[in-house]
Order: sequence, then structure tokens, then C-alpha cells
Amino acid sequence: MKTFAAEFLGTFWLVLGGCGSAVLAANFTSDPFIGIGLVGVSLAFGLTVLTIAYSLGRISGAHLNPAVTIGLWAGGRVETSTVFPYVAAQILGGIFGAGVLYAIATGNGSAIGDFAANGYGDHSPGKYDMMSCFVTEFVMTFMFIIIIFGATEKDRASGAFAGIAIGLALTLIHLISIPVTNTSVNPARSISQAVFVQGWALEQVWLFIVAPIAGAAVGGLVYKGLLRKTDFETDD
Amino acid sequence: MKTFAAEFLGTFWLVLGGCGSAVLAANFTSDPFIGIGLVGVSLAFGLTVLTIAYSLGRISGAHLNPAVTIGLWAGGRVETSTVFPYVAAQILGGIFGAGVLYAIATGNGSAIGDFAANGYGDHSPGKYDMMSCFVTEFVMTFMFIIIIFGATEKDRASGAFAGIAIGLALTLIHLISIPVTNTSVNPARSISQAVFVQGWALEQVWLFIVAPIAGAAVGGLVYKGLLRKTDFETDD
Amino acid sequence: MKTFAAEFLGTFWLVLGGCGSAVLAANFTSDPFIGIGLVGVSLAFGLTVLTIAYSLGRISGAHLNPAVTIGLWAGGRVETSTVFPYVAAQILGGIFGAGVLYAIATGNGSAIGDFAANGYGDHSPGKYDMMSCFVTEFVMTFMFIIIIFGATEKDRASGAFAGIAIGLALTLIHLISIPVTNTSVNPARSISQAVFVQGWALEQVWLFIVAPIAGAAVGGLVYKGLLRKTDFETDD
Amino acid sequence: MKTFAAEFLGTFWLVLGGCGSAVLAANFTSDPFIGIGLVGVSLAFGLTVLTIAYSLGRISGAHLNPAVTIGLWAGGRVETSTVFPYVAAQILGGIFGAGVLYAIATGNGSAIGDFAANGYGDHSPGKYDMMSCFVTEFVMTFMFIIIIFGATEKDRASGAFAGIAIGLALTLIHLISIPVTNTSVNPARSISQAVFVQGWALEQVWLFIVAPIAGAAVGGLVYKGLLRKTDFETDD
Repeated sequence: MKTFAAEFLGTFWLVLGGCGSAVLAANFTSDPFIGIGLVGVSLAFGLTVLTIAYSLGRISGAHLNPAVTIGLWAGGRVETSTVFPYVAAQILGGIFGAGVLYAIATGNGSAIGDFAANGYGDHSPGKYDMMSCFVTEFVMTFMFIIIIFGATEKDRASGAFAGIAIGLALTLIHLISIPVTNTSVNPARSISQAVFVQGWALEQVWLFIVAPIAGAAVGGLVYKGLLRKTDFETDD
Repeated sequence: MKTFAAEFLGTFWLVLGGCGSAVLAANFTSDPFIGIGLVGVSLAFGLTVLTIAYSLGRISGAHLNPAVTIGLWAGGRVETSTVFPYVAAQILGGIFGAGVLYAIATGNGSAIGDFAANGYGDHSPGKYDMMSCFVTEFVMTFMFIIIIFGATEKDRASGAFAGIAIGLALTLIHLISIPVTNTSVNPARSISQAVFVQGWALEQVWLFIVAPIAGAAVGGLVYKGLLRKTDFETDD
Repeated sequence: MKTFAAEFLGTFWLVLGGCGSAVLAANFTSDPFIGIGLVGVSLAFGLTVLTIAYSLGRISGAHLNPAVTIGLWAGGRVETSTVFPYVAAQILGGIFGAGVLYAIATGNGSAIGDFAANGYGDHSPGKYDMMSCFVTEFVMTFMFIIIIFGATEKDRASGAFAGIAIGLALTLIHLISIPVTNTSVNPARSISQAVFVQGWALEQVWLFIVAPIAGAAVGGLVYKGLLRKTDFETDD
Repeated sequence: MKTFAAEFLGTFWLVLGGCGSAVLAANFTSDPFIGIGLVGVSLAFGLTVLTIAYSLGRISGAHLNPAVTIGLWAGGRVETSTVFPYVAAQILGGIFGAGVLYAIATGNGSAIGDFAANGYGDHSPGKYDMMSCFVTEFVMTFMFIIIIFGATEKDRASGAFAGIAIGLALTLIHLISIPVTNTSVNPARSISQAVFVQGWALEQVWLFIVAPIAGAAVGGLVYKGLLRKTDFETDD
């Protein structure tokens, strides 16, 4: 129950904070204000993870992302029985976050438009085709899970830095890939936006479920097979 | 006395640094300079908290915010006798910070205009209505206090990271919500600006007292009832 | 000798990195490039201190600033015999940094113009008068030294975070005050630029020697008298 | 093998993330989007190093850069037999990263143009001449390796902060020098781009091999001779 609450609240915060910064502040240019742009949105997504990692991470591990949960499971770090309740909490928390954002964002009479939905082809911010978007989401989530595995190895002097490394990895991923797919690497985040945008966003949401999960699962297997710490290693 | 001085100086710095960056540098575009925009202001507010947490935090805990003090009290982390002197130091420190900012900002002959006051409706930067602004301030402060509680649980390997997590949480909150309310989540900050702007700012300041305190108090109760560490838990 | 080398190299880096980012990259807009603006310059100054603190800080304490050395001396943290050699190393390192920057910056045929010199009145970026600029430099350096004292108290669990807190304090100070004085809080930085700009910059450099040193000295005395850790305190 | 994989993947990430942010997002201005600009690219490069340092650093040390490997060797920190396999992994990983970036970036029908190649003279973003570019790359890599040596001294309370210090040092270096050379300080990064751009980029790539390696090697010798920790020193 406590774990469920932590993943729910954490993913709520990821969507409200990350997507919220994009919807409310990215392009806000009511003169003379200068919006936060892609740098600000990238920072915001990363900071949602960083702040939850250092506050609720001790409860649930702060996955906040079905692809992360499944990647950790594929790499043998998480038990099978954990996967479904985590993913359920993440999807529900994400949708609740999108709902609160909807309530706030429409409070000045504006429509939500494309919200912060993810898309490919004509709905890619930079009009990147489906293959390019799939590769991007796959590779970004692959590297994200590799970083998560490595940063959370036990018995490391730098173990407490994992929240910084993982949060800023998400910032980095957004700095790279917002123009391609609006950056997902997180099915719960994509679903939460598609539910409100409907139409094209629901039609395209499959890619932002399949590619991040595939990337994370392959990443988990690669880490387990090739990079994990063995009992023979000593760490500084 | 030492505690009072720490909260006074810290909130002085929060207002001078956070509101100061907004008033002096956010929209500074004396060609060819590019102002710090909403990203810079968000960073500045967060860094005031981060820098005070790591310097004067050992003295007073670096609340710097009546809503934080009251939220910590609601969650059972702070004694009742502490609340009034903390809040008094915060409000006085904030007003002193605004006074120094006033002296600096008018030093080139310009008027302070709306300073960095918080507002709703016509005085919301993005013209968000009162309900939207209330929800925003409530939810942002609710999550802020959850993060503060979680990051400061005792006996954690990552306990020393609290100053980073909490400071950057305030940065994140600003990245999201400046267009809505100019971001308060802190009655001392709002009062300090309203005192100088007068008029509409004083009329609207109630919302930036009520909503942050309500959000923080509810957050404190939720954390206490649902998320706090119990004696049965072991932490890495 | 080793200490001298550390302060020399560190201040060299502060000027080359901080002033260099301002001169080379702040307003670089050779389309379609977007320069780093005031946010980037603020980050750069802070990161020079952060990077030196974690690398050469163990050798010299990474003051990199005559006002910091004198403020620490006023607060009883540094011995009198240390002051002169530190300040000499800082001024020489700063001038050498400015010299290398001069060599680089003129490599595309452009003149250095006002370099990254500090000024007041007509030479303040935002045309702030002398009093406003003096108050700004005094208060910013006062808070800078308070943060430095507090973050470096011995026997603290968070003592290793001092480099982050102090580096980002300098970033914060720049986010606030570049429009006012171009931000000094550091006589070595101001002198290094004035030596190359000559004229008005040399005439005005006194303020950027007097105000930071006065602010730091008063800050050191306030910290010593009011805020320092006593033997009776226990720290978490 | 594990070490090779870590350097390969890490340099893959440095090029895909750092150069990728530059190619895909730096100047992305499909209205109303605001690209990440030079600040965002600087952050991205630094965060590639920071994230790999805290995840795969325990395996290979996270050099991700032939100049770093050679500089550490010159300073006596790395054995001669390590140099060739590390450099080979870095160059191959970098080219693989550039290949994936090529696949993504051309997915909207655009040509790669100059990719994120480094250049001098007419190919310097700010048209800086060859000498200016050489000095810049030499000095930046010199300071980079000094920071790396200092931040990774053994037996330090702040040793676990090395990933932050070194990652943000690379951010700082980019904040300063993108307008001069598009910033290399890393032959593997430069080679990876030149291989795809061909022509002028291949003709000029020698400078971005020679200057960073020379700067790092001299830095390693200076650190070893002048600044390293001796057995007689005690550290806090």
C-alpha cells in the first residue's frame, strides 16, 4: 500500500511537473517574459525524478515508469510479482497528474491542443519518421536503464548519488530527443497525455509503449549479461 | 536568537535572490544581453534554498517559509512553540530582503512596477483564474512538503542530499508554475512583495497565504499517516 | 609553493572560464546559434569554483578571491600570514587568465571592447548608479562569505557538499546581479579585466575592490559573532 | 572485455548525447519551440560524462576520451598497456554513436550538414583562426585533466563527488569554447563527426587530435610534478 502510494504520487509528480512545465511554461512569451524552452522542460523532467528519488525512493525505489520496472525485472533486479502493481500505480498516477494539469491549464480559457503528447511522423515536433522515432525511443530507454542499473549497484561509495545520476540522465535524454518524439521513454507519461488528447495521440501511443519497454528490457539483459558487478569484484 | 538570525538571513536571501533575479535579470535585454528568463529565475529561487540549507541549515533547519514550518508542524516534525518565532523571522527577513531589492532596483531610475508580486486572474502572468491559481499553489506546496519530509528522514545514507533535493524541488516548482501565479508556495515571499507593490497585490495576497499553508498542512498529514518511516523499516 | 600554484591556477580558471564565457559565448548569435546568455555566464562562474573546489580545494581551500581570503581572515578562519601570498597568487592568476582570454578572443580579428569588466553608472549594464552598485556588491559578497563559513564548518555530515553549495552560490549571485554591476564580488576578477580594458574600467575598479572586501569582512565578523558553531552544539 | 564494453558504451553515449543534442535540438525553432542553444548543448555533454561516471565508472573509470586516457598515463595514473585498448574502444564507440545519430537525424529528410564537427578558421563557429583554436583546445584540455586528477585523488571525503566535478567541468568547457572550435577536448568525439562529414572536417581533425592530447599530457605532467598528493599530506 505504501509502495503503491509512493509510485502513484511519484508518477503523478513526473507528469504534472514534466508535462506541466512543457504545457504551461515552455513557450510562455507574454512579453516581456521568456519561456523556459526545451532546456527548462528537460530540467523539469529530470528534477521530478531527482526529487522523488531522494524523498520517496526509500519506499518504492522511485521507478515512476513502466519501462524502468520491466527493464529492472528483465535484468533480475525486481521480482515478477512486483511488476503489475508498480505499472498500475504508475499509469493511474500519471493519468491523475494529467487530470490536474488539465484543470490548471484550461483555467485561462485556452484549449489543451496537443498537450505534451508524444508523436511520430507528422506529429513529431521535427517531423521525424516512424523508424527514426522508434530508434530514438529504443536507444534512449536502453541507455537510461543501463545508467539506472549501474548507478544502483550495492556497496558503492557513490551509491547515494544515484538520484542525481538518474534524474539528470532523464534531463539529458530530453535535451537530445524532444525535437524527435517530444521524448517519452516512459509509457505512463505517454498514456497520460494520449488519454486527454485522444485521436492521433491514442493512435500513435503504441510506439511509446513498445519502444521504451523493448529498449529497457534489452538494456536489462545486456547489463545482466555483460556489465553487472560480480562477487569477485571489489569496488572503491 | 541564533535560530531566529538564521531564518531571518535565510528568508532575506530567498527574497533578495529569488525575487531579485526576477526583478533585475529576468527580462534584461539591453542589447546584446540575453536575460535569464524563467529558467534563470527558477534556478535562482532553488539555489537560495540550496545554499542556505548547506550553510545555515544546521542551525535552524532552513525552513525559510511559513508554509514549510506549518507543514512540518502538522506532520509532527516541529514543536508548536517553534512555529511563531520561525514565521515571524521569515516574514521580517523577507520584508528586509524586499527593502534591499527596492533600494537596488530603483537605482537606475526605474519604478518597481509589479515587483515580483504573486497574483491571480488579471494579475496572473498567463491570466489564469482564481481557482486554477489556488489549485496550483495548493498542489505545488503539497508536493514540496512531501519531498521535504521524505528527504529529511533520519538515518539515511542519502540524508546529506536533502539540501539538493529540496532546493531543486523549488526550482522545479518554478519551472512549472511561474506563468500561473508567478509562483509563491511561500507566504513570506508573497507578503514581502505585496508590502511594496500595495493595491492589487495586497488584495490578492490572501490566496498566497491560504493556499500554500493549506497544501503544506495537508501534505504534512498525508506524509505522517501514509508515508513516514516506521521503526519496523530498515533503510539502505 | 603548492598552495600558491593552486590559488594561481584556480583563479586563472575562474577568470578564463567565467569572464571567457561572457566574452566568447554570452552574446554569440552567429545564426542559427543561440548564445549562452546570462544564465550560461552565471553557470560558468559557479562551475569554475565548483570544479576547482573538488580538485585543488584540498591544497589551498580554493579561495580564488581576495575578498574571500580577507573575509575568512576577519572571521578567524585564516591566519594573517596567509593573506598576502593568497591575494598575490589570485591577482596574478586572474591577470594571466585574462591574458590567455585576450589571445583567444582577438583570434577572429575582433577587439575586446569592454571585455567582461565591471562598472557602475554609465558602465553598469543596466545603468544603475554608484550607490546601487555598491550596495549590490557589498550585500552579495556578505552573503557569499556567510554561505562559505557555514558550508565549511567542521564535523558535518554534509561537509563534502561545500563545493556544490559555494559554487552554486556564485552562480546565484550572477543570476541576480549581472545587470547591475556585471557582477564582481571578487577584486581579482575585476582587476584582471580592468588591466586590459584600461580607461574607465581602471577608474571604476576601486568599487569592485572596496565593496566586496568590506562585505566579506563584515560577513566574517557577523558569522563569527552570531552564527558559528560552538563547542556546545551537536550536529547531525 | 567488460572494461572495453564500458568505454565503448560510454563514448557511444557521449557522442550520441552531446553531439546529438547539438545536431537535433540546439537550433530547433519550429515555432513556438525554443531550442536548447549553447547552454543546453553544454549541459548535455557534461551530463553524458556525469551519468556514465556514476553508472559504468566503477568498471573502466569512465575516461570516454583518448586525451584523458593519455593524460592520466602521462601523470602516472594509468598503465601503458591500458592506453591502446581504451583508445580503440573510445574511437569505435564514438563512431557507432555518430552512426546512430546519423540514422536518427536524417529521419526527417534533412542532410547532416556539418553535423557537430569541430573546425578552425572558416570552420570555427566564430571564425577564430587556427592559433586561437589550438590555444583554446590545449588550455581547456589541460585544465580538464588537472580537475580530473585532483577530483580522483584517493582517500578523500569528497571522492564520490568526482563524477559531478568532472561532468560539470566538461559543461563549463563547452560554455566557454563552443563559439571558438565547437569544443572538442576529445579526439574520439571529433573523429566520430569527421568520418561522417568528410572533406574539410577530415582535413582539420588533426588539430582536435593533437591539441587535446598535448594539453592533457602536459597537464598530467604538471599535476604529477607540482600538485599531487604526497604521503606526507593529510586530508580532511
